[in-house]
Amino acid sequence: MEKMRINKAFTLIEPGPVVLVTTNDGNKNNIMTISWTMVMDFTPMLAMTTGPWNYSFAALQETKECVISIPTVDLLDKVVGVGTCSGADTDKFEKFRLTPLEGKQVRAPLIKECLANIECRVIDIVKRHNIVVLEGLAAYFDKARKEQRTLHAVGDGTFIVDGRKLNRKKMMVEKLPPGL
Amino acid sequence: MEKMRINKAFTLIEPGPVVLVTTNDGNKNNIMTISWTMVMDFTPMLAMTTGPWNYSFAALQETKECVISIPTVDLLDKVVGVGTCSGADTDKFEKFRLTPLEGKQVRAPLIKECLANIECRVIDIVKRHNIVVLEGLAAYFDKARKEQRTLHAVGDGTFIVDGRKLNRKKMMVEKLPPGL
Repeated sequence: MEKMRINKAFTLIEPGPVVLVTTNDGNKNNIMTISWTMVMDFTPMLAMTTGPWNYSFAALQETKECVISIPTVDLLDKVVGVGTCSGADTDKFEKFRLTPLEGKQVRAPLIKECLANIECRVIDIVKRHNIVVLEGLAAYFDKARKEQRTLHAVGDGTFIVDGRKLNRKKMMVEKLPPGL
Repeated sequence: MEKMRINKAFTLIEPGPVVLVTTNDGNKNNIMTISWTMVMDFTPMLAMTTGPWNYSFAALQETKECVISIPTVDLLDKVVGVGTCSGADTDKFEKFRLTPLEGKQVRAPLIKECLANIECRVIDIVKRHNIVVLEGLAAYFDKARKEQRTLHAVGDGTFIVDGRKLNRKKMMVEKLPPGL
């Protein structure tokens, strides 16, 4: 997994893929499946909605760290599996045969099998709305990976796979952040 | 455009499509293109990141109302066009030949050409993060529309079109909100 410039990392989240979020509570690793995320700026700042109903929330709140991993379509059953059991009684890395990799900035692990990973620190929790605000610190992208299509959760148990890509860079040149 | 049950409206936003957001400042209609959105709950509560740098923000803040419209791939050039000019000097409905339709709950217009529309009221603005929190009040979906594939902005001037849909309802049955 190669390093990716951090000011490009927002482009991993902006299309709205379902993501895996890892934490480490000082004792063990955990993973949750999240599709309620949002880009907030290009640095990047990111938001996600979560709260005490997710077992990972305690570790997130205490360590103020996590990794956002971007899975692809071949990982769909693992993504759904991770989202339908709890870290309270399950080692999800073991159960779903996912491989934790050490990051550089945070103790939460990267996921080797994912297309990309973003190490993040929690910079704020907006409690009245259960919004966790994250800053991306370092990003990694697996260029060698053959399958690069991500998944978009509809919320009714179905998922949309990435289709073709259309280019409007010329029309948008004045609106794009520099260095992309 | 037929009425859609409001508790299904989050499924329009959860996949992460680029959206058009309309406002009416009491005098004229405007539209902005937004891809920084997030579902917050199933009622639905939705978040979007925007601020004074968008001309629509003043109307949004003052009227506390907007409509979120979901465009499809055939509307890409209008979506990019709307996002690269300003309502300060442009009537975007006229320029991009979009048709405003009267809503029931808010003065901001629906967009006839879009696949779906959600009438929303602003229930909070988290100023320190430029997050606008919305509650969906009524939703509409154009079932008769042939093209239903939405667009996902990557943020670098490219857009991913919806591909195929995969079904994992059985695996997720215990996690899905009732009534979907």
